Amino acid sequence: MTREVEALQIALRQFAKERDWEQFHTPKNLAAALSVESAELLEHFQWLTDDQSHVLPDDKRAKVGEELADVLLYLLQLADKLGIDPVDAAWKKIETNAAKYPVDRAKGRMTKYTEL
Amino acid sequence: MTREVEALQIALRQFAKERDWEQFHTPKNLAAALSVESAELLEHFQWLTDDQSHVLPDDKRAKVGEELADVLLYLLQLADKLGIDPVDAAWKKIETNAAKYPVDRAKGRMTKYTEL
Amino acid sequence: MTREVEALQIALRQFAKERDWEQFHTPKNLAAALSVESAELLEHFQWLTDDQSHVLPDDKRAKVGEELADVLLYLLQLADKLGIDPVDAAWKKIETNAAKYPVDRAKGRMTKYTEL
Amino acid sequence: MTREVEALQIALRQFAKERDWEQFHTPKNLAAALSVESAELLEHFQWLTDDQSHVLPDDKRAKVGEELADVLLYLLQLADKLGIDPVDAAWKKIETNAAKYPVDRAKGRMTKYTEL
Repeated sequence: MTREVEALQIALRQFAKERDWEQFHTPKNLAAALSVESAELLEHFQWLTDDQSHVLPDDKRAKVGEELADVLLYLLQLADKLGIDPVDAAWKKIETNAAKYPVDRAKGRMTKYTEL
Repeated sequence: MTREVEALQIALRQFAKERDWEQFHTPKNLAAALSVESAELLEHFQWLTDDQSHVLPDDKRAKVGEELADVLLYLLQLADKLGIDPVDAAWKKIETNAAKYPVDRAKGRMTKYTEL
Repeated sequence: MTREVEALQIALRQFAKERDWEQFHTPKNLAAALSVESAELLEHFQWLTDDQSHVLPDDKRAKVGEELADVLLYLLQLADKLGIDPVDAAWKKIETNAAKYPVDRAKGRMTKYTEL
Repeated sequence: MTREVEALQIALRQFAKERDWEQFHTPKNLAAALSVESAELLEHFQWLTDDQSHVLPDDKRAKVGEELADVLLYLLQLADKLGIDPVDAAWKKIETNAAKYPVDRAKGRMTKYTEL
């Protein structure tokens, strides 16, 4: 477990415990909340062109940062409940993806690995 | 920036660059991909009871770990593109939430802060 | 095309045209908006128990109705842009599902058809 | 209630009843399923440009039609459980939106009504 990520998880456990919110934080509910927050993040981009999405005005960028944080916080709480180390899982997934998408075949196209 | 998170981001930049995928990785597209992966994570829980969601069979737990990793990888790429430090943003959001949800008023209920 | 659904689609076309919003209503953007609205609908349920979700207070039920309408409106606009008849597609999908989930094997369990 | 939509809802009730799936179809679970299916629909568009999203190849368009049907089927089941008429709700929402987005102020821009 990375120390910085673990520090966030410990703070989140404390936060939920103090508010007696553990009863609501079932893995199922946390997965729903994670999905809801991700959509709120997407909402900021939905009518932008790709070019506009690269250069957000400061106030919008700040809001996007908050939504992004919400997604991360739910992700860390869900991982904590399930006993999954998110950073380990991320490194393993990069390896898996490297095998699924070999450079020579994946280059320049976003075709699903099953169709490469 | 936390070192472990930054290491993942550097690996992801390299991964995209080798495959010439930077052209697809606009913030808008990454936000959509993040949202799609979050929903795939939720899919594993959608018909479970809360109790069942606490005790996943091993194969399901492994798949959930992979989806969780996918969410984290897109989140880190999006943050990288936008120049947002996700761990800093997460700590700030915990502070904001502590102010929005004071222990005495939030205890034991998931009422939105605007209605507390 | 069902007449009632088509009437809604005609009204929506007019609505977008009057506001010069057709430029924003690409199928891609409409699919994102549909997904965002669905998550807003889910948000109302995320911390409820299953039992609570059956008996919404009146004000919450009214809000849920509005979110549900938003989802339907984007769905109808997306279908319209793609030349897909949503009611026809729905009937076909019911048939497909009936073949995928034969009563004797699917009874009482939500196992994905690929694992039945 | 529109007749065509109601006919779909009646078929869906029967479908669930025959499979003893009513126990799983709580409003909360149906809202999650609706959100998951919407994201699967979005997945087909996530790496496309806006232009590409207008001209889907036939096989992709067929898959999009199936996902769109899935979204509609869950929406109709959720509305049925909650006693909400989706077509009525949609007409009401168009009226609400017309008031929120007057033509002269909303023309040519996708600014949220709270910021118009």
